[in-house]
Amino acid sequence: MYVRGMTFIDEYKPRHLTLTPESPTFWRVTFDNPPVNVIDAEMMGDLKVLLTELEQNETVNVVLFDSADPDFYLAHYDLAGDPSIAEALPSATGYPAWVDITVRISKLPQVTISAIRGIARGAGSEFVLATDIRFASVEKAILGQMEVGFTAVAGGGAGGRLPALVGRGRAFEILLGGDDFDGALAERYGYVNRAVPDAEFEAFVDAYATRVSNWDHRALGEIKGFINKYTRLPDEEFLLHSDAFWGAAARPEFQSVAAQLFDNGLQQKSPLEYHLGEEIAKIKPAAGK
Amino acid sequence: MYVRGMTFIDEYKPRHLTLTPESPTFWRVTFDNPPVNVIDAEMMGDLKVLLTELEQNETVNVVLFDSADPDFYLAHYDLAGDPSIAEALPSATGYPAWVDITVRISKLPQVTISAIRGIARGAGSEFVLATDIRFASVEKAILGQMEVGFTAVAGGGAGGRLPALVGRGRAFEILLGGDDFDGALAERYGYVNRAVPDAEFEAFVDAYATRVSNWDHRALGEIKGFINKYTRLPDEEFLLHSDAFWGAAARPEFQSVAAQLFDNGLQQKSPLEYHLGEEIAKIKPAAGK
Amino acid sequence: MYVRGMTFIDEYKPRHLTLTPESPTFWRVTFDNPPVNVIDAEMMGDLKVLLTELEQNETVNVVLFDSADPDFYLAHYDLAGDPSIAEALPSATGYPAWVDITVRISKLPQVTISAIRGIARGAGSEFVLATDIRFASVEKAILGQMEVGFTAVAGGGAGGRLPALVGRGRAFEILLGGDDFDGALAERYGYVNRAVPDAEFEAFVDAYATRVSNWDHRALGEIKGFINKYTRLPDEEFLLHSDAFWGAAARPEFQSVAAQLFDNGLQQKSPLEYHLGEEIAKIKPAAGK
Repeated sequence: MYVRGMTFIDEYKPRHLTLTPESPTFWRVTFDNPPVNVIDAEMMGDLKVLLTELEQNETVNVVLFDSADPDFYLAHYDLAGDPSIAEALPSATGYPAWVDITVRISKLPQVTISAIRGIARGAGSEFVLATDIRFASVEKAILGQMEVGFTAVAGGGAGGRLPALVGRGRAFEILLGGDDFDGALAERYGYVNRAVPDAEFEAFVDAYATRVSNWDHRALGEIKGFINKYTRLPDEEFLLHSDAFWGAAARPEFQSVAAQLFDNGLQQKSPLEYHLGEEIAKIKPAAGK
Repeated sequence: MYVRGMTFIDEYKPRHLTLTPESPTFWRVTFDNPPVNVIDAEMMGDLKVLLTELEQNETVNVVLFDSADPDFYLAHYDLAGDPSIAEALPSATGYPAWVDITVRISKLPQVTISAIRGIARGAGSEFVLATDIRFASVEKAILGQMEVGFTAVAGGGAGGRLPALVGRGRAFEILLGGDDFDGALAERYGYVNRAVPDAEFEAFVDAYATRVSNWDHRALGEIKGFINKYTRLPDEEFLLHSDAFWGAAARPEFQSVAAQLFDNGLQQKSPLEYHLGEEIAKIKPAAGK
Repeated sequence: MYVRGMTFIDEYKPRHLTLTPESPTFWRVTFDNPPVNVIDAEMMGDLKVLLTELEQNETVNVVLFDSADPDFYLAHYDLAGDPSIAEALPSATGYPAWVDITVRISKLPQVTISAIRGIARGAGSEFVLATDIRFASVEKAILGQMEVGFTAVAGGGAGGRLPALVGRGRAFEILLGGDDFDGALAERYGYVNRAVPDAEFEAFVDAYATRVSNWDHRALGEIKGFINKYTRLPDEEFLLHSDAFWGAAARPEFQSVAAQLFDNGLQQKSPLEYHLGEEIAKIKPAAGK
């Protein structure tokens, strides 16, 4: 059965995630990039290879994304690395790396599900927004788009995806406030589909994913096609968000915020990373001359 | 007063629903097609005649749809009958029968309200999605789109109407999961406007319908016109959903699921019909040769 | 610093609101037009002058709108005054006064927040719908669009803004029912972002506004630009709502409702104004001859 997929699994050597085939139709992808699961060039490389396989795979029905760290789902984009490394990776769409990845996820033939335990901020939140369905642990999930605290817009399309989930007013609040949302509030807003008590979380998510993985592959694709037709923005919109982000990232105000945050524990298992929604409001960007 | 309507009421002989004029401006339509209120060719015939009257009636302000059976609102489309019978009925839009009915409901000059007690799955759920407003009993309402379990997309436009109510992520979950939603969860998702405890349900719904029925006919039409302009898909979209459904229905996988379900009590007051959301996941479609 | 704004503050002499600069980047605007904060020509004049300043002001990040009266946020449009007075005010868009104001609010470079304590019906509700973010007191907020009870559509665009917040079905219910929504229900529907217990309301709202006021001005503008691009209707749509409203207002049925309401305490701190959602359903419009 599914020769393509099995060959792929045998040969796939991701560095910062684990691919577990729960069944021929249900693949689990587990983020594992200590200490806080930042989205770095290597993880983006892993994701791009996975996406290329999934785009051609006609057997897998469901891809479930979870995290090896119960405290951090995906902390955010790696701000320590050289951005040009990710941009040198092959881009199927021709867009910058993070746009390439998020746009392609949202068009996969498979059903994509985010099982959010721990923190998903910035690009981590944008990753889950690019998947079809988001389930969150009541006690352990934290979502947020804190880019505004860096003097930037969210670069991976949060501003293009949130309105279709939470409506206009709550999209403004989330993106302009840049604060944290716990699982319960995220459900009230529609930021996630549903928040489930942590004790029941794994069983709930696995049951849903298993159920969907047993349906007819073609039917799933047709259903996705209709919903995507009515609710997904054209790809080129997301380039505009990316350009605005990288424009801000090149300015001294952004770099001043990042430097201050690194001084205080950014990208470490620090109080600052745990409470970044609160901590970022204490930073004052220094303007360039 | 309202000569057209009174003549219509005198002459209307529906087979599977009852029309009760609560007042000149408030008509109640009660589904009554034992044992489980399937939507069959006769009920579709009844609905088409009703729609033709309502499209021309300038007195009635509100049409409230409820069910004679507290356990079944509208179970789903009739899968036992010959589909060609419904398709031979006159079609005002030129579209297939179920598209003709649901598209016309969503464009009526009257305010249409679904008072959902009992089960509304598949086309039953699509009926309520085509009405303007949905109220559900907390204890007794069950909604779901289980077509994916039949290897099909929903044929009456659920995929075109859910996103404007529940957003992109929850539309995916509902349609790709195919599971049941009780009244409370349906409210949290926006699948229904509001879930009301069953003991207060009738009084609540009747009070809302009566209130609206006393407003100015022209104002109601103008308000509906604006909301429809911004939130209703073009009619022709719904033909695509229908074509996709009937394409699937012609395949052996669909027929295998239906046959197995009929063997286990489909369209009867059976445990299977009560728990179809759960039961359908136990069926494996047999592929054709 | 911000010479323009300081000059403006010194010279601004509004009659029915108070402008308080909480900081150079955070302005508070407090409605104060006893007895019930109707939106009259003088208040519209005040708002137009404020909008002209804000449209050019590059320092202020946040404008928070609250009320001096804890029972009335903005009761509704003034129905006692001569409408031609407001229409004689300068109109930056060329649209009628209330359209000019609400369209311009929704396009400001600043983040606009409504802190809703007390009653916001009709045009008062439309004002908050035109701002970016709405917070409501659980105990003290009441929102509603009762124009249908006047035989009219809402003239300031509620029908164009509610669908992007509450979805199609709930937009129908709110506008066709014309009834009151308390803070908790308004949150469940998405009519407001969030309802907060009254004891915590001021602290919550001020903390959010202060936080946003400290972010980068350019980033806020870019974020707003993206959300507006995807969720705001073209300005010209709102003229259609206004024309429909004024068409109804010229008919005897509307004038009959207004006259009966004035006889019973409209625009006074009367039981009728407190309970207008309920009271208006008791009025029967008298048709013209």
